[in-house]
Amino acid sequence: MAVIKAHGSLLSTATQRVLLCLYEKEVEFQFVPVNMGAGEHKSENYLSLNPFGQVPAFEEGNLKLFESRAITEYIAHEYTDKGTQLLLPGSNKSMAVLSLWKEVEAHQFDPASSKLAWELFIKPILGMATDSAVVEEYEPKLAKVLDVYETRLSQSKYLACDYFTLADLHHLPNIQCLLGTPAKRLFDSRPHILGRYLTLLAVNE
Amino acid sequence: MAVIKAHGSLLSTATQRVLLCLYEKEVEFQFVPVNMGAGEHKSENYLSLNPFGQVPAFEEGNLKLFESRAITEYIAHEYTDKGTQLLLPGSNKSMAVLSLWKEVEAHQFDPASSKLAWELFIKPILGMATDSAVVEEYEPKLAKVLDVYETRLSQSKYLACDYFTLADLHHLPNIQCLLGTPAKRLFDSRPHILGRYLTLLAVNE
Repeated sequence: MAVIKAHGSLLSTATQRVLLCLYEKEVEFQFVPVNMGAGEHKSENYLSLNPFGQVPAFEEGNLKLFESRAITEYIAHEYTDKGTQLLLPGSNKSMAVLSLWKEVEAHQFDPASSKLAWELFIKPILGMATDSAVVEEYEPKLAKVLDVYETRLSQSKYLACDYFTLADLHHLPNIQCLLGTPAKRLFDSRPHILGRYLTLLAVNE
Repeated sequence: MAVIKAHGSLLSTATQRVLLCLYEKEVEFQFVPVNMGAGEHKSENYLSLNPFGQVPAFEEGNLKLFESRAITEYIAHEYTDKGTQLLLPGSNKSMAVLSLWKEVEAHQFDPASSKLAWELFIKPILGMATDSAVVEEYEPKLAKVLDVYETRLSQSKYLACDYFTLADLHHLPNIQCLLGTPAKRLFDSRPHILGRYLTLLAVNE
C-alpha cells in the first residue's frame, strides 16, 4: 500500500482538520512539515502539490489532493472499515443532511471562525498584534452562526445525525483554537454546543 | 412523487446554481420566488426553511435543504438516471478529484467571483454604485485563481475529468454574470477557460 503523506503546518487549522481525520480513521501516515515562515508553501516543489500555495496537501501514491475538506472526504470513503465511521451511509436523503451541515461549516462557520482564530490565537503565537476591529466585526457574525448550531444541537445529538460525522469533525480545529481565547465566551453562553464539543476535544486531546 | 420546490431569487447566483442543476438533470420543479427587496428571506416562514435567512432553499416532501452546493449534490445523486451525468462514478480516487475541484470552486473561485459579480453586475441592476476599491482588490485575486484553471483546462477537458460535472456547473452562474461586465477581460485573456465555458453557457441559454 502506498504511503500517505500529509503536508502542512501544525499552526494551520486546515492542516489540523486533515490530521484529525487521519487519527479518527486510524490510518497510518507520514506528516511532512511545510515551513510557511520560510515561504516553503510558495516553492516550485510545493506548488506542484497545491497550485494555490496553501496548506495542507495530500499524497497517496499517484493521487495528489489539496483542499482540506476534499482530503477528509477521500479518507472517510477510502477507509470506511477503519476507525470512527464519519459518513452517513444510507439514503440520498440522509447523505444530503450530512452534506448540508458540511456546507454550513464551510460557508457560515469557517469564514468567521477562521478570521477570529487568526486574530486571537495564531497572531499572538507569531508575535503579531491582534486587530481588534476585525475581532469586533467577526464576533457577532460567529455568534449568529452559533445561534443556529445551538438550536440544531438541542434537537439532534450531532449536527447531521445522532453520531459524530465529518460535519462535526470539520469544526473542531477552529473551535479548539477559539476555546483558548476570549472568544470562548461565545461558546460558554451556548451550552449545547459547548457540551457537545468540549467532550469531543477532551477525547481527542 | 413529492413536488420539488426551489425557493430563491433569480438575482442570486447561488439560486441560479440550483436551478441550473435542476435543468441539467431534467427534473421537474416549482420555483418559489423570494422577494429579498421586501425582506422575505428574513421572515419567520422563510427562516424555517433556511435559518441563515439566505437563498436558495429546497423542499421535496419532508426533506428540507439549504446551501446551494448541498442541494445540487442531492439532486445529482437522487436523479442519477435523468439528464446530464454530473457525477464521476467509479473509484474513491476519481470521486476525490471531483471533490477537490468542487472545493476549489467553493473556497478559491467563489469568494472573489461573488464579490465581483455583486459589485459589477448585481449592484448596477439594483441602482447601487459599484465600489471600485472592492473591484481593484478582488480582480487580481480572481485572476490568480483563473491562472490555475487555465493550466488545468489545458490538460483536462473539464475541471474534474473529460466530461462536464458538478465541479464545472457550480462555476457557471458567476462566470455568466462576469462575462457581462468589464471583468470579462479576465476570461478573454485565458482561452482555455473562455473556450470551455462560453460553449457551455451558449448551450444552456
